[in-house]
Amino acid sequence: MTEIDKKRHSLSHLMSMAVQELYPNVGLGVGPTIENGFYQDYDLPAEALAKEGLLESLETRIREMIKKGIKFEQHDVDFDEAYKLCKNDPYKTELIDDLKARGEKHVSFYKSDWFENLCAGPHVDSAKEIDPNAFKLTHIAGAYWRGDEKNKMLTRIYGLAFDTKEELDEYLKNQEEAKKRDHRVIGKDLGLFVFSDLVGKGLPTFGPKGATIKRILERFTTDEELKRGYHHVITPDLAKVDLYKKSGHYPYYKDTMYPVMKIDEEELILRPMTCPHHFMFYKSEPHSYRDLPYRIGEIAHQYRYEKSGELSGLTRVRMFCLADAHIITAKDQAKQVIKEVLELIDFINEALGITKGIDYRYRLSLGDRSDTKKYYKDDTSWDYAENVLREVLTETKAPFYEATNEAAFYGPKIDIQVKKISGNEETAFTVQYDFVMPERFDLSFTNKEGKPERPIVIHRSSIGCLERTMAFLIEHYAGNFPLWLSPVQVKVIPVRESHNAYAQEVYDLLKENGIRAEVDLEDENLGKKVRAAKNERIPYWVVVGDKEVESKEITLESREGQKTESLSHQKLLNLLQKEIKEKK
Amino acid sequence: MTEIDKKRHSLSHLMSMAVQELYPNVGLGVGPTIENGFYQDYDLPAEALAKEGLLESLETRIREMIKKGIKFEQHDVDFDEAYKLCKNDPYKTELIDDLKARGEKHVSFYKSDWFENLCAGPHVDSAKEIDPNAFKLTHIAGAYWRGDEKNKMLTRIYGLAFDTKEELDEYLKNQEEAKKRDHRVIGKDLGLFVFSDLVGKGLPTFGPKGATIKRILERFTTDEELKRGYHHVITPDLAKVDLYKKSGHYPYYKDTMYPVMKIDEEELILRPMTCPHHFMFYKSEPHSYRDLPYRIGEIAHQYRYEKSGELSGLTRVRMFCLADAHIITAKDQAKQVIKEVLELIDFINEALGITKGIDYRYRLSLGDRSDTKKYYKDDTSWDYAENVLREVLTETKAPFYEATNEAAFYGPKIDIQVKKISGNEETAFTVQYDFVMPERFDLSFTNKEGKPERPIVIHRSSIGCLERTMAFLIEHYAGNFPLWLSPVQVKVIPVRESHNAYAQEVYDLLKENGIRAEVDLEDENLGKKVRAAKNERIPYWVVVGDKEVESKEITLESREGQKTESLSHQKLLNLLQKEIKEKK
Repeated sequence: MTEIDKKRHSLSHLMSMAVQELYPNVGLGVGPTIENGFYQDYDLPAEALAKEGLLESLETRIREMIKKGIKFEQHDVDFDEAYKLCKNDPYKTELIDDLKARGEKHVSFYKSDWFENLCAGPHVDSAKEIDPNAFKLTHIAGAYWRGDEKNKMLTRIYGLAFDTKEELDEYLKNQEEAKKRDHRVIGKDLGLFVFSDLVGKGLPTFGPKGATIKRILERFTTDEELKRGYHHVITPDLAKVDLYKKSGHYPYYKDTMYPVMKIDEEELILRPMTCPHHFMFYKSEPHSYRDLPYRIGEIAHQYRYEKSGELSGLTRVRMFCLADAHIITAKDQAKQVIKEVLELIDFINEALGITKGIDYRYRLSLGDRSDTKKYYKDDTSWDYAENVLREVLTETKAPFYEATNEAAFYGPKIDIQVKKISGNEETAFTVQYDFVMPERFDLSFTNKEGKPERPIVIHRSSIGCLERTMAFLIEHYAGNFPLWLSPVQVKVIPVRESHNAYAQEVYDLLKENGIRAEVDLEDENLGKKVRAAKNERIPYWVVVGDKEVESKEITLESREGQKTESLSHQKLLNLLQKEIKEKK
Repeated sequence: MTEIDKKRHSLSHLMSMAVQELYPNVGLGVGPTIENGFYQDYDLPAEALAKEGLLESLETRIREMIKKGIKFEQHDVDFDEAYKLCKNDPYKTELIDDLKARGEKHVSFYKSDWFENLCAGPHVDSAKEIDPNAFKLTHIAGAYWRGDEKNKMLTRIYGLAFDTKEELDEYLKNQEEAKKRDHRVIGKDLGLFVFSDLVGKGLPTFGPKGATIKRILERFTTDEELKRGYHHVITPDLAKVDLYKKSGHYPYYKDTMYPVMKIDEEELILRPMTCPHHFMFYKSEPHSYRDLPYRIGEIAHQYRYEKSGELSGLTRVRMFCLADAHIITAKDQAKQVIKEVLELIDFINEALGITKGIDYRYRLSLGDRSDTKKYYKDDTSWDYAENVLREVLTETKAPFYEATNEAAFYGPKIDIQVKKISGNEETAFTVQYDFVMPERFDLSFTNKEGKPERPIVIHRSSIGCLERTMAFLIEHYAGNFPLWLSPVQVKVIPVRESHNAYAQEVYDLLKENGIRAEVDLEDENLGKKVRAAKNERIPYWVVVGDKEVESKEITLESREGQKTESLSHQKLLNLLQKEIKEKK
């Protein structure tokens, strides 16, 4: 347990003391540390929950205990003593039963002042070690004892805790910002996507604006990959279940796969991934070393039945679109291929305004030679593959860290770890080194000596799952997309109805030149129309009044408050087209 | 029965006479007319099938009977007489049993010379009416008696027959051409798509070249629709089965729908069409008359489980991509909306090189007021809708014909009837007028008076199902795609290895300017490399030798045998880019 986790866990004990000071015989459920803090379950009486300011008064009491320097002292007791210490608490008593059943010899307790708690620890030695201003009790929720809805519902009190007040404040600020930038909220406000109960959970419908962003991202990725020598294919969304049995995905991924559809003589299933499709395509004709590395790419629909509790806006959906690719290559080309892939990822991220070293870094996820259940047994291949990945990351000076026991079944991988507005880091997608599937699918190429040779496969994404990337971008930009990604790029706003004709003319000019424009012909005052454009986060608007009608010149106003005056039609187009091309 | 069908049916009798001259007691199965000809089933002895030149000798004998002017005379007999006439033929006897069971009073026979055949007719009066050179016996196949595999396998002899020899020759020529242009053959030759047993029947994988064509068609259609004011959305491939129950598709289309997938509390199903998704999207926010016509478009994956016997290359598949749209409009705008739609279809077809009046025409498919089972009962709406469609076709001077009893359940439609290389006409896609779904989904808009009003819906496609359109284009162009659709547009061919560097330079130039190019650096002689480019149907190639390396000028050779010499790099690019833009 890290030092901060010790503090968090100790805070949970202090909170329990504060609770039992108020309600002496209250039973204690579980109380682990979690990311950024801790929680503890209590069998609180109804009156406690009705009490106003409960969390604040507990906080105050905890601060006093910290100042007092309450100690945490571990001691082992035998089972008789353990049952005695917990005789008023049916939950702790049940936990002692479990320990006994597991054949433990004694039971660990922590004593703090009058408080004796069944606990394996560890804890800080003294509460003095905790900064009294670096924690906060945040909220209360219901939780079934042991997570089983047949059991009693207990009260869970959540707390945040950090080493310093600054860290806590930073975290709270990020949370506040994340709330404002929540892609589900902005997505709704800007009309990017909707969900419908009748359609089904986790199945978004992208409205015209959301679809525009998705289409731009899709075309951008496809075109860039084609430029870089990828062969883009289109494979079907479903296939015979036999295909996924051959690849080993079924039943391995069965938990999140849709059920088999039986018709006539066939058993079909929606695909959870594209790998076996791409391997079958590679096998549809013979290949020589001159074809390698053979890069098969696709923007592919994929289907996973996530539990409804895990669904969340566009971040976790039941059908998604992955910019997927499988690069079939000779083993000795692997290093170069992975370098190319990281270069592509960096290129795409840069275009999206996602900065390496700040918004994302790499994680080298390694296997565990001793765990032959989780990882395919082939020590030599693992050593070779892990070295290749490490060398690439080192040679390209990529910001990365290593993590053991995070690899795929079939080989090590590089995870692209992005930092969300909330401060949380998550794996956006991965670059995987695979020496197992080429065997399973009997992939082969003719080498320089004219002999058949076994290639290896690099699985990779370049922009990830489009839904998830969109969710990230919405939050990253708080809906203020750069010009090239904005669903509506320019809004033309006539001052009065008499200016409508010229406004329409400017609108037509923009449309004809491929600018995504709108013209606001509503019978509203100018201020209201400009406010609407701002609320829609439109990057630019053009106000058309008497002056503009007469001079045929244009003033371009930006979302960021800039004004560019006296633009000719051509200059307006040049300015916009340049910015779109530069993806700024 | 039309005159040509009488001839076809009479030929089948003459064929039976010729057969029974050779094998007197041979039993006769069914013998109907079919498109372009006829067939007749026989219980032929094995020796007959082993005989060489059977069809030719039958043809000769039929021609003699035609010259002789064999007569066809109908007469009714009672059942006793009927059984007597067919006493040697167990199949005809079985048919007489059926007639008797059905309560018929007498049985119709046709007598020709010595031949008495159980037959309802009609026939020509004399064989003289038949052109002896306008028919041809084509092939033999096996067929179970009454189509039941538990019955005896009979021998089916097929024949073609037309009014004139010219028509027969034309038909045979078209068939020959259609065979050569079969998209399944060309698709394989050019590496456009592959099928795999392990993936599943009717589920094509598009290789890089096929995917390129599909991508171009998709982007072209989407961009054109966006220009024309369509709102392109992206809706999920599957939904709760309740959605399709609400729309009435389930269980109505159940036969070709994939089975329901039950997981947890949900029942999901792959969508057979997008309509309900688009309606749900329309309903996700309120609309006023100012939003109408509201055009919702999508290039949508759709899923239908066609019977394996009906699958055919890209023409009939189990998952496809439809350029679908639903235009929600006030009733009084319907005419204008349909005009716009036909204009878009004409525009897209013209770009694809499909000529109105030659390659396609329109069919106005009408309902039947008396068939309330097949058609939604609402005479006024039917009258109104059919008139609107007829008026549009008439006013726009579109080539069309009317067909009764071909409408959709929910309203009349205009079918886009394309003519295939084989001469067969088929419905590529439709424009439908729907006054039923708006009721079912309670679609609404606020009219000028501020009151809620019910819109109507126009269902339409603009380029159809992309797989099917690709199949059509492959056959239409025999693989010689125009430049803008060609997967590889230019191939650069160095004469010798010493020219490779400059060839690579030209290739890079083309690629950088968005031309889909390849460079052939194989160690082969020039002739072989040029032949390869021709076989791949590449529209242009550039041969690079000493002269080109020195002058830096380029000679462009075309698939059609043209040569354009002394092109500077810029002129080469201009020439290609102009042709691509013009879609010639």
